Amino acid sequence: MESILQKQLQFLIEIDKLKTIQRKTKIVSDTRLENDAEHSWHIAVMALILNGHANEEVDLFKVVKMLLIHDLVEIDAGDTFAYDTSGYEDKHERELQAAQRIFGLLPAEQGEELMNLWLEFERKESKEAQFAASLDRLHPILNNYQNEGDTWLTYQITSEQILKRNREIDNGSKTLWAYTQQLVHDSIARGYVLE
Amino acid sequence: MESILQKQLQFLIEIDKLKTIQRKTKIVSDTRLENDAEHSWHIAVMALILNGHANEEVDLFKVVKMLLIHDLVEIDAGDTFAYDTSGYEDKHERELQAAQRIFGLLPAEQGEELMNLWLEFERKESKEAQFAASLDRLHPILNNYQNEGDTWLTYQITSEQILKRNREIDNGSKTLWAYTQQLVHDSIARGYVLE
Repeated sequence: MESILQKQLQFLIEIDKLKTIQRKTKIVSDTRLENDAEHSWHIAVMALILNGHANEEVDLFKVVKMLLIHDLVEIDAGDTFAYDTSGYEDKHERELQAAQRIFGLLPAEQGEELMNLWLEFERKESKEAQFAASLDRLHPILNNYQNEGDTWLTYQITSEQILKRNREIDNGSKTLWAYTQQLVHDSIARGYVLE
Repeated sequence: MESILQKQLQFLIEIDKLKTIQRKTKIVSDTRLENDAEHSWHIAVMALILNGHANEEVDLFKVVKMLLIHDLVEIDAGDTFAYDTSGYEDKHERELQAAQRIFGLLPAEQGEELMNLWLEFERKESKEAQFAASLDRLHPILNNYQNEGDTWLTYQITSEQILKRNREIDNGSKTLWAYTQQLVHDSIARGYVLE
């Protein structure tokens, strides 16, 4: 038992580093950047609240688990900005290596379970992965709207880029995609984003 | 549908404030204080990994939901330091008011569900609440041990206070309580805490 617990604790201490991985989006309540741990918490709660808007009924606990662990790979691979096309070229390779190292800290069976969850999330084929991905995409849009387009204006992101990049919200939730489009159009009108 | 979604989003934006509520414990990976959102994320993952050590088999999704929302009341009521006995006198009253306001932002049925989950966590009677509380207690002890007793030395907390305050870990997990005691005794030997 002790060696199982030791491995589990080693993993749990290692993942504290997620709190130091900064995203490009600021939190709503302050002027600082959000970190991956906060983001993961927020989208897990979003899943609890918004699951009624998923296109199909989902295994909600699976969605929550995916969201809680989906960004752990960024401890090694870093946060790749959503609109950084060159960063996306080797993103999966970098993240796969990270997943092997980080989930590999756990007892074998648990490590494998988390690896499979992460791979399922990455593949975006199951309805759970699609709904989870919708929330992961929607979250920074909500923040940026509240922050009057902060990231979009800083990085000169256009409304077209946002709509193209986030179209996959539709795969998880038609309702949330309709709402996203509304928010982006409203952001143009308010000057939060370039048309 | 639209008004339901609006209420849900209002709640989800409001709870962003959890990221600004600072705890007394520092994160392991940096010298800054941890906030409630990061802590909530971390203990939700702890539940996924450590549930095999619970005294009884638990409804793990319920434990995770409790942990994700248990600190939301601190948006209004603030973080009460674990060793602040006077702060604990009106803690429940302050937090109950906060719960009513914050969960009250949601559509009625969802608000009621979260209120009931929070109350169940607070009462610490169900096996899920007891296991959840064990993780909530264990987390800062892990951090403080990694940080060479940082909070304990700053606030002159004794090992006796730690053991008294955290004895309830035993109610959720005898294994984790045995481990906690070991960690506290090791902390005395290392000079991380006053005896």
